[in-house]
Amino acid sequence: MSQVFKTIRRVQFRDTDAAGIVHFSVFFTYMEQAEHEFLLSVGLGVINEQDGQTISFPRVHAECDYRSPIRFEELVEIEMVVQKIGSRSVTYQFKFSCEGRDVADGLITVACCEFSTGSPVPVAVPDRFLHPLQDYLLDPQD
Amino acid sequence: MSQVFKTIRRVQFRDTDAAGIVHFSVFFTYMEQAEHEFLLSVGLGVINEQDGQTISFPRVHAECDYRSPIRFEELVEIEMVVQKIGSRSVTYQFKFSCEGRDVADGLITVACCEFSTGSPVPVAVPDRFLHPLQDYLLDPQD
Amino acid sequence: MSQVFKTIRRVQFRDTDAAGIVHFSVFFTYMEQAEHEFLLSVGLGVINEQDGQTISFPRVHAECDYRSPIRFEELVEIEMVVQKIGSRSVTYQFKFSCEGRDVADGLITVACCEFSTGSPVPVAVPDRFLHPLQDYLLDPQD
Amino acid sequence: MSQVFKTIRRVQFRDTDAAGIVHFSVFFTYMEQAEHEFLLSVGLGVINEQDGQTISFPRVHAECDYRSPIRFEELVEIEMVVQKIGSRSVTYQFKFSCEGRDVADGLITVACCEFSTGSPVPVAVPDRFLHPLQDYLLDPQD
Repeated sequence: MSQVFKTIRRVQFRDTDAAGIVHFSVFFTYMEQAEHEFLLSVGLGVINEQDGQTISFPRVHAECDYRSPIRFEELVEIEMVVQKIGSRSVTYQFKFSCEGRDVADGLITVACCEFSTGSPVPVAVPDRFLHPLQDYLLDPQD
Repeated sequence: MSQVFKTIRRVQFRDTDAAGIVHFSVFFTYMEQAEHEFLLSVGLGVINEQDGQTISFPRVHAECDYRSPIRFEELVEIEMVVQKIGSRSVTYQFKFSCEGRDVADGLITVACCEFSTGSPVPVAVPDRFLHPLQDYLLDPQD
Repeated sequence: MSQVFKTIRRVQFRDTDAAGIVHFSVFFTYMEQAEHEFLLSVGLGVINEQDGQTISFPRVHAECDYRSPIRFEELVEIEMVVQKIGSRSVTYQFKFSCEGRDVADGLITVACCEFSTGSPVPVAVPDRFLHPLQDYLLDPQD
Repeated sequence: MSQVFKTIRRVQFRDTDAAGIVHFSVFFTYMEQAEHEFLLSVGLGVINEQDGQTISFPRVHAECDYRSPIRFEELVEIEMVVQKIGSRSVTYQFKFSCEGRDVADGLITVACCEFSTGSPVPVAVPDRFLHPLQDYLLDPQD
């Protein structure tokens, strides 16, 4: 059964807007921060230098569905799983909630890229990433 | 034939990140700014008070596909059309380019809501919004 | 002897810019977050409603001296003291460091305001704020 | 008599916070954007590569005094002059107003640095920068 990565954030004042709620663009930075925390928690880095290669994961798609607003000082729980491991990409799925209330659902797809030439070249996800990612894969029979 | 709303932005230093490119979350604020410029350009407001009613448009969905990065000081062209007018929602479609290069495609769906009770109540898109929106509707036979 | 409020932050990717370092404007949001954490830690709120009054603290001055840059994923230690309690204002002093390295020094002065009429009216700092603030006052003989 | 560089910005929704006003940290990005527009307007760049040298201007000090709030969609006028040209630094002074109302005053001091070794090395402000800067110097007899 797949594991779920969980983290929590308190809404900061700068995250809010004049509607009194967290600005919709901020959910994307929350997602990226959860992804980075996850990578650290499983012993991987955001930028990975090894054997003369630099592997990192630029974003190719991001989306979010907003269900109810969150406000300054509220504690937001973020649950993250790996929705899909593609040949050269990974899709993370996020669920935001606040005291049991459904807040938002999001998705980020990152490309696995090698940067030693300066510009990103898509490559297969290296084995040392595959194993921890598979532990969090939503539906392992895919 | 549908009209296209066009605007342009110069990338500001704060829009970039340590990868040297515009942070992926920033495209969502670019989209919102284009939408607000469009509303002003057709004589509508972001927050519309009339006859004791306050009509505004909270976001319910946002997404973006990233095709090539943009950097500090580059000029980004943004083209926006109305992809769909729902009974109580509007979907805007955005195309980002930079000197002919395809940069990103995005989508924002907003709910049409009335706020006089304090919290948002979804309502049908008022007629005075429908007419300008229809001029920019991508495919009028839908 | 005055107490020092200490907190720590890991630099998030969105905090950085194309120079590869934390953008100078971000230090001000770090300061505000430290101030808010401090208020919570001493049992006060950022927005305080009591006896029909709403007390809050809009910023009237902010400044920062930058000594060395900080980068993505670094842990920043923030130390905060109360530099001055004025009749209707409070000045907080901040010291940023990273693994013993001096990073930045900042200052924020907030006005003590009452908001029940809608717009802020400067008022004397209420007693229930004075006591915890005095514990963190830099130089108690002032 | 010194010239004044003038620019104007419309407050974007993301610039605001839950107090309904532009967040205090945003004034610093407005200042930086005005500085960058000024450099472009006088034929200089933000990052200047010439004769194997790269000259740029990291911030060493920033401050702002807040006099009255500004809100979503308001047009903010920004006036900028050069307050001081040091041997290896430049201080810019900013005045924010909105329909004649005094909004804020700010100051940014940048160090003149050469980057060809990777890390910034303070250097004297090159002649080709001095001339345009002197045209905007607040008090030429200094």
